[in-house]
Amino acid sequence: MENGVFLNGRYCTPEEALISVDDRGFLFGDGVYEVIKCFDGKFFKMEEHLIRLQRSAGKIMLDLPYTAREIAAVCYELRSRSGIQNGLIYMQATRGAAPRTHYFPQSPSPTFLVKIIEMDVEIWLEHCRGVKAIFLPDERWVHCDIKSVNLLPNVLARETARRQGAYEAIFIHSLGITECGSSNFFAVLDGRLVTAPQGDRILSGIIRETVLQLAAAAEIPVELRYPRPEEMAAATEAFITNSSDEIAPILAIDEKPVGEGRPGKITTLLSDKLEALKKTL
Amino acid sequence: MENGVFLNGRYCTPEEALISVDDRGFLFGDGVYEVIKCFDGKFFKMEEHLIRLQRSAGKIMLDLPYTAREIAAVCYELRSRSGIQNGLIYMQATRGAAPRTHYFPQSPSPTFLVKIIEMDVEIWLEHCRGVKAIFLPDERWVHCDIKSVNLLPNVLARETARRQGAYEAIFIHSLGITECGSSNFFAVLDGRLVTAPQGDRILSGIIRETVLQLAAAAEIPVELRYPRPEEMAAATEAFITNSSDEIAPILAIDEKPVGEGRPGKITTLLSDKLEALKKTL
Repeated sequence: MENGVFLNGRYCTPEEALISVDDRGFLFGDGVYEVIKCFDGKFFKMEEHLIRLQRSAGKIMLDLPYTAREIAAVCYELRSRSGIQNGLIYMQATRGAAPRTHYFPQSPSPTFLVKIIEMDVEIWLEHCRGVKAIFLPDERWVHCDIKSVNLLPNVLARETARRQGAYEAIFIHSLGITECGSSNFFAVLDGRLVTAPQGDRILSGIIRETVLQLAAAAEIPVELRYPRPEEMAAATEAFITNSSDEIAPILAIDEKPVGEGRPGKITTLLSDKLEALKKTL
Repeated sequence: MENGVFLNGRYCTPEEALISVDDRGFLFGDGVYEVIKCFDGKFFKMEEHLIRLQRSAGKIMLDLPYTAREIAAVCYELRSRSGIQNGLIYMQATRGAAPRTHYFPQSPSPTFLVKIIEMDVEIWLEHCRGVKAIFLPDERWVHCDIKSVNLLPNVLARETARRQGAYEAIFIHSLGITECGSSNFFAVLDGRLVTAPQGDRILSGIIRETVLQLAAAAEIPVELRYPRPEEMAAATEAFITNSSDEIAPILAIDEKPVGEGRPGKITTLLSDKLEALKKTL
């Protein structure tokens, strides 16, 4: 069973998936990306992901070389070629190869990559049982709502977390907690689900939006505001969301337990509701 | 005459210079770079550039696969193979190809690229005669002293400048003017040369440092502080510096002339001194 790659119009193996060193993705991080979960052969909210890809591309004035319908067809083809039923689709569009100058190329030839990667279900289940996190300052640029490949601050933050025995880094901005290295952040404070509002300080995840819908349906009160880090001592629960982990409870932050240090009631309820939703797709 | 490329231990043509789509430079912008001017077959302050490359790499915990001496030898070899006497050396190191996760690869195999690019001397001379600039907000992350390839804010700023008929974008931070899209910024205010201090808000250029040394030798008073944008109405001169343009006078900002709208006395003096310095190398 081989992982499949689609690169600039053709299907190939990972070894054959090569780009020029002049690709603006490599030289400038001049590109955007998406990650879509595939479970039991189904893609979770693919349409929402493709709309978001289009939105990110638009924000950096990049014309995608394929329509959403064409990209979806590539995803189905990769699933079929690879035989992968549980995995992740990674897709990335860049402004392509061109002589190096910051200005956009006058006749850009975008690079478009789609790759299917098998998921390690054991690791996913481990994250579902809970993870540790640390606080770090939010050092990113101002347009965090663009899902670009300028990810060095996220890379350095998550590596710092790993070196401290944690899974994820929670970003503290002067506004409060924004999100994490590669996930959105939720806290339960006084029985209310609190998470940062949409805006340019967060990349509002598809799972984040799904969780907010599930919370509304379950009549869990929600506050869209930036949680203060000092509030976390009184938080009864916290969790992170992203497309690969879906919902992962945070058991401890900076080695201090969150609530009772185990997945809380609201987190578990939302995880169950998400699993139920996936079964209906 | 062919531009030469060195990639991961071998010399090749630009067409042969290919990397994996799994390269962390492409996926995360997880890399650093340098640009070195080659004029009349001589490299300008190569040692300083190689020290800075090492410093940037250290700041992102990236071990360079070659020593400064080995990299210098590659530059000389590329000059010789290409026959280029006036050009730019572009070099970039990334954390290499690895399965996609934000965490650093456990056994990284860094990518190292060096490329020699012929310079268009006419365009350089045009910039020496003066350029236009615009003001834009400084939207970058907090570690601008790391010369990383997370350059999307710089790309978007310079493209915005180009679309407004300008060459460069001057970044305004709450602190004042920090630097530009791909150059350092200097203003002459009350006969004093004013430029942002070293620190994490600017990438202190090799030409910036050289200009400060030349100014000291010429007894031009220098103030290391962030110029306020509103001060520019009273500025008698302004210029930008970087390795490819060296010193380029700013004739107008947002279509308002700086001083008399032509290269000023101090700018011209410093340009002449820089040319004289180059002749001694």
